[in-house]
Amino acid sequence: MGKVVAEVVIVPHGTGSTSLSGYVAEVEKTLRQYGLETMLTPMGTILEGDLDVVLRAVRAAHEIPFDQGALRVGTTLRIDERRDKDISMKSKVRSVEEKLGD
Amino acid sequence: MGKVVAEVVIVPHGTGSTSLSGYVAEVEKTLRQYGLETMLTPMGTILEGDLDVVLRAVRAAHEIPFDQGALRVGTTLRIDERRDKDISMKSKVRSVEEKLGD
Amino acid sequence: MGKVVAEVVIVPHGTGSTSLSGYVAEVEKTLRQYGLETMLTPMGTILEGDLDVVLRAVRAAHEIPFDQGALRVGTTLRIDERRDKDISMKSKVRSVEEKLGD
Amino acid sequence: MGKVVAEVVIVPHGTGSTSLSGYVAEVEKTLRQYGLETMLTPMGTILEGDLDVVLRAVRAAHEIPFDQGALRVGTTLRIDERRDKDISMKSKVRSVEEKLGD
Repeated sequence: MGKVVAEVVIVPHGTGSTSLSGYVAEVEKTLRQYGLETMLTPMGTILEGDLDVVLRAVRAAHEIPFDQGALRVGTTLRIDERRDKDISMKSKVRSVEEKLGD
Repeated sequence: MGKVVAEVVIVPHGTGSTSLSGYVAEVEKTLRQYGLETMLTPMGTILEGDLDVVLRAVRAAHEIPFDQGALRVGTTLRIDERRDKDISMKSKVRSVEEKLGD
Repeated sequence: MGKVVAEVVIVPHGTGSTSLSGYVAEVEKTLRQYGLETMLTPMGTILEGDLDVVLRAVRAAHEIPFDQGALRVGTTLRIDERRDKDISMKSKVRSVEEKLGD
Repeated sequence: MGKVVAEVVIVPHGTGSTSLSGYVAEVEKTLRQYGLETMLTPMGTILEGDLDVVLRAVRAAHEIPFDQGALRVGTTLRIDERRDKDISMKSKVRSVEEKLGD
């Protein structure tokens, strides 16, 4: 109970540059400080671990673009939690791949 | 600093019923207990207030479908925060409507 | 079959201004040209109608910030479709409000 | 112009099972038929290619859970498009990893 797989996307608005990777890298550094499994994808960061730790990590990471000078930040978090069995980043992908015969 | 406008969607999976309103209503009751401005829309609930209170409300509401017997819950949260000026649910809609001449 | 309720959010990145309402207003004008029910909320626009029309409207609206000079655009679309009964923006809210005694 | 990186999540509601991988696998098979780059992640599928092809793939994949007997389907699509330079799934991750020194 309590272990979730989640995805977070944190982006500044109004920074004047179409490039966001400098912000995303600093956000990623912060997310990695919480002892969660993390996976950087082309569309966000996937986290695995205790929900309360995930929320603390996201709360902290939401501050990062402001610390870098942004004045508006949009944060999106999707949480997936099962209580009938354990899930993990690996098990979620594997169960689909098995059915695909990958 | 700290006042955000956010949207939250909390849905159970595997309940055997296509109707989700019984779950959504209980989630809504919980969200309303935190002193935030709330607005029920056809696609979720919009919240306005301190970010830490928003996160506490969402954390509590995420438990509600489990309390009702669901074994899997998906929660999505989008946060919009500006620090150059105050935003509110009303001001965000009004600024668009003014430009539309509504 | 085919009638959906959906939510769309379209925002430019790198425009140099924290204010997005000028872009959102033009997006909204475009979305309103497709004969769909539309509802502007503080966190996006909710649409109701045929799914293929929704997709055409979103496809067109995604171009709008580019037409206004933006060089990067993020578009998010959430679609909810039931085939056991008709849903609408009104019916979705009403079924929750009835359970809440609102 | 027109090449985007996008993420899609398609899930049935009311199926009576907490396991969704059987649905996700069929959705994935459909998404792979459109000539797009695809990446299955623990939280969805990332697509890279022409926006109109992405929309056709998502439109087709949204039907799949209905074909499998589901009566309610939720689809979420996030699109990221830049027109000042080409982006790809690989370049987006690499530009962050370079800054992280990964």
